[in-house]
Amino acid sequence: MTLSFTLDPAETEPLFLQIATRVRHAITSGQVVAGARLPSARTLAAQLAVARGTVDAAYSLLAGEGAIATRGSAGTVVSGTEGARIEPVEHTPFMFDVEPAQDPATPLPFQIGLPALDVFPRKLWSNLTVQAARSIRPTDLAAADPAGLPSLRHAVAAYLGVARGIRCSPAQVLITGGYVGALSLVRNVLLRQGDPVWMEDPGYFLTRQALEAAGVRLVPVRVDQDGLRVASGIVAAPKARLAVVTPTHQCPTGVAMSLHRRLELLAWATDAGSWILEDDYDSEFRYVGRPLPSLKSLDRGQRVLYAGTFSKTLFPALRLGYLVVPPELATAFARASRLLTMGQPALEQHVVATFMQKGHFARHIRRMRMLYKERRLALAKALDAAFGSRVTVEMAAGGMHLLARFPNAADDTVLAKRAKHAGMMPSALSAMTMAHDQGQGLLLGFTNIAAEDAPAIVARLARVVDQ
Amino acid sequence: MTLSFTLDPAETEPLFLQIATRVRHAITSGQVVAGARLPSARTLAAQLAVARGTVDAAYSLLAGEGAIATRGSAGTVVSGTEGARIEPVEHTPFMFDVEPAQDPATPLPFQIGLPALDVFPRKLWSNLTVQAARSIRPTDLAAADPAGLPSLRHAVAAYLGVARGIRCSPAQVLITGGYVGALSLVRNVLLRQGDPVWMEDPGYFLTRQALEAAGVRLVPVRVDQDGLRVASGIVAAPKARLAVVTPTHQCPTGVAMSLHRRLELLAWATDAGSWILEDDYDSEFRYVGRPLPSLKSLDRGQRVLYAGTFSKTLFPALRLGYLVVPPELATAFARASRLLTMGQPALEQHVVATFMQKGHFARHIRRMRMLYKERRLALAKALDAAFGSRVTVEMAAGGMHLLARFPNAADDTVLAKRAKHAGMMPSALSAMTMAHDQGQGLLLGFTNIAAEDAPAIVARLARVVDQ
Repeated sequence: MTLSFTLDPAETEPLFLQIATRVRHAITSGQVVAGARLPSARTLAAQLAVARGTVDAAYSLLAGEGAIATRGSAGTVVSGTEGARIEPVEHTPFMFDVEPAQDPATPLPFQIGLPALDVFPRKLWSNLTVQAARSIRPTDLAAADPAGLPSLRHAVAAYLGVARGIRCSPAQVLITGGYVGALSLVRNVLLRQGDPVWMEDPGYFLTRQALEAAGVRLVPVRVDQDGLRVASGIVAAPKARLAVVTPTHQCPTGVAMSLHRRLELLAWATDAGSWILEDDYDSEFRYVGRPLPSLKSLDRGQRVLYAGTFSKTLFPALRLGYLVVPPELATAFARASRLLTMGQPALEQHVVATFMQKGHFARHIRRMRMLYKERRLALAKALDAAFGSRVTVEMAAGGMHLLARFPNAADDTVLAKRAKHAGMMPSALSAMTMAHDQGQGLLLGFTNIAAEDAPAIVARLARVVDQ
Repeated sequence: MTLSFTLDPAETEPLFLQIATRVRHAITSGQVVAGARLPSARTLAAQLAVARGTVDAAYSLLAGEGAIATRGSAGTVVSGTEGARIEPVEHTPFMFDVEPAQDPATPLPFQIGLPALDVFPRKLWSNLTVQAARSIRPTDLAAADPAGLPSLRHAVAAYLGVARGIRCSPAQVLITGGYVGALSLVRNVLLRQGDPVWMEDPGYFLTRQALEAAGVRLVPVRVDQDGLRVASGIVAAPKARLAVVTPTHQCPTGVAMSLHRRLELLAWATDAGSWILEDDYDSEFRYVGRPLPSLKSLDRGQRVLYAGTFSKTLFPALRLGYLVVPPELATAFARASRLLTMGQPALEQHVVATFMQKGHFARHIRRMRMLYKERRLALAKALDAAFGSRVTVEMAAGGMHLLARFPNAADDTVLAKRAKHAGMMPSALSAMTMAHDQGQGLLLGFTNIAAEDAPAIVARLARVVDQ
């Protein structure tokens, strides 16, 4: 197709904007229709006697608006009306009217590791954010301490003292980009390529992938009903540089590491001069008995680095977490924060600090603990009602997911795949194991399933399992 | 000293909070004074017949409030009233009233690399943040794409097309934690320990430190009046894995790389299968002639990774930047984003995208360009008035700082040190060189010096130089 319009050299508007305006008008007026192929940039440039780059800029602007799309050899075509927003926009240079093509999906049923998004106190959070935004001073715009905003480091240190039995100074606390950010710091400061590292088997896939990407030598160490089998680790790699563990609720089995094993692990690290990374990702959510103390609270030899995340207690899009390091490592980690990330955004840190200082954090955790307890029970009941003796549900003492085993069903990876097709997102246990078989099962996140919805969602799962 | 109070077992308040309240009262009532040493946690625990950890938690809370401080062998002492905020707080567990001890400092005169903080449109920014905060939906709380919010990736791609002549799809754009975050991604995906890397000499100290920390082999390549001497690099390390360059305004000399050198560099990278990282940190600020096109815009062989930062165009505490990678690297970099950081906070990304879409970004850059031009000239004039023939001012065609050489003064590192004592923060040129002497001089940031303040601030500098 050809476009017939001319440009006005007397107009003050830049040429590329004139072109974009005219093409946009041709689309919105119906002169060209969805799927129509536009002339190539080269052709249109020749027709209009402008530089090729001028047409490129116009097309790039329209593509950003979703009005047109580049389709490889099919050329540049006009987008369909679904999804695309084609609206005349005010003509300011560098002005774009861009929206993400698709609406962000709601959490899929059974997705693990996600807090309940429906009940987060958005209004309160937004009010605190508004207050923080309205009180920005010029000096707040300069980069803050890469190790973290002092008020947040204080608040985290005090919280960990009270809630996790950890005695540390704010100088030992680094504010990180979530758990992944903490792990990046640990990799950077402590690990070199080829270093042997103990990894729980089964274990958290992100830890495994990040450590693999760092080129260390992963040593899978079996997890049993008492947690990590320290003796097996010592046999496999007595001088491992680091052991990464989830002692409170082992990820993914939910097992709590026994006191005996904890002391054994600490003794090994002290003797071998090794380090331990305690990933305490969801310790706040325990439904039976008292909260377990952290491994770090037993760490007399200062061998434990402790990582926690606000992704589970607040929300993942916040991208904030914390890492407590032994005093002797504080300077090295502060330096690494500067060279790896230069720190996290000030506004978010400020809002979290205020949220903690004002007591909202503790209240929110208490509310979520009660809610998750209810949702967990509702899911377990629904599974029992739907599957009866065909399911074994392992309800670990805490956490954000259950483990359901279906002994007579297909392979768990097959079940997970089928479920995904049906719009659900359970995780296969076997996909999280490295060397030590733990059998088959589906990890079912319950945090985002309202109690009243559990029967219907489990019915959908049953259709997949029984297929 | 001893504290005399008792605890009430019938009170519903936890013991550690009772202790904290009573100690706080002793301080606010004047019963104990600033500098007084408190009983050790062990002593007080014995006196009150509670666990040592209970007193620790109380002291930790008070330390977080700034009411008391731990001073090593001097024990725990009551803080002075300056700086410390000692106020009775509402007694909610995990509730803290913590403020950073010191007010954030205003930018120091001559500090380099900082945009003008006094004129940033805080009100507009805060309004956009408020809108974004008020429209958070539950699904926005889940982690966004680690490579970046789609709307921001689109906006950056369109901006770079228009402003820097870079044709790229949003899929090639990664939203990073500023320039340092972009550099971390590059290190992670492209570099292994021992890899030779060309580095401009003199060059940006953060690039140098971050690459040194990554264990690569840095190859300093001399910079002359045409920019990086590509031929010298080829002699020193013909098969370097990467070259990091600042072609628009060489950091710190301000030199623009000549077209000849640019083509030479691209040809080398294509032949050698090497990569180039273009750090285009302040290209927006050019005061003479037209903006220089980016190196990336000439990159037919797709060897250039292009990094830009919002730290200079917006503000550093935002911690956002972008990296454009060749299409063949897009998947590897998206994966690395996930394993290194899991992406940047959604709220900030959303605000920046809106700021760009609505045309504020372009307007802000235009305003800053005019302001910086004025401040730069005012500083140059003030230097000339104060020093006359004793100074040579090198005003690069753009950027955010000048280079002032004082041929008969002390060593530039001595001058920088003296200036720091006097509350100013110029940077010594010689501290940025590795192997190739570029003479002596002070880099003087002008962005935060109002034109009318320049004479007085230069007079302070003159006292330091003439000391």
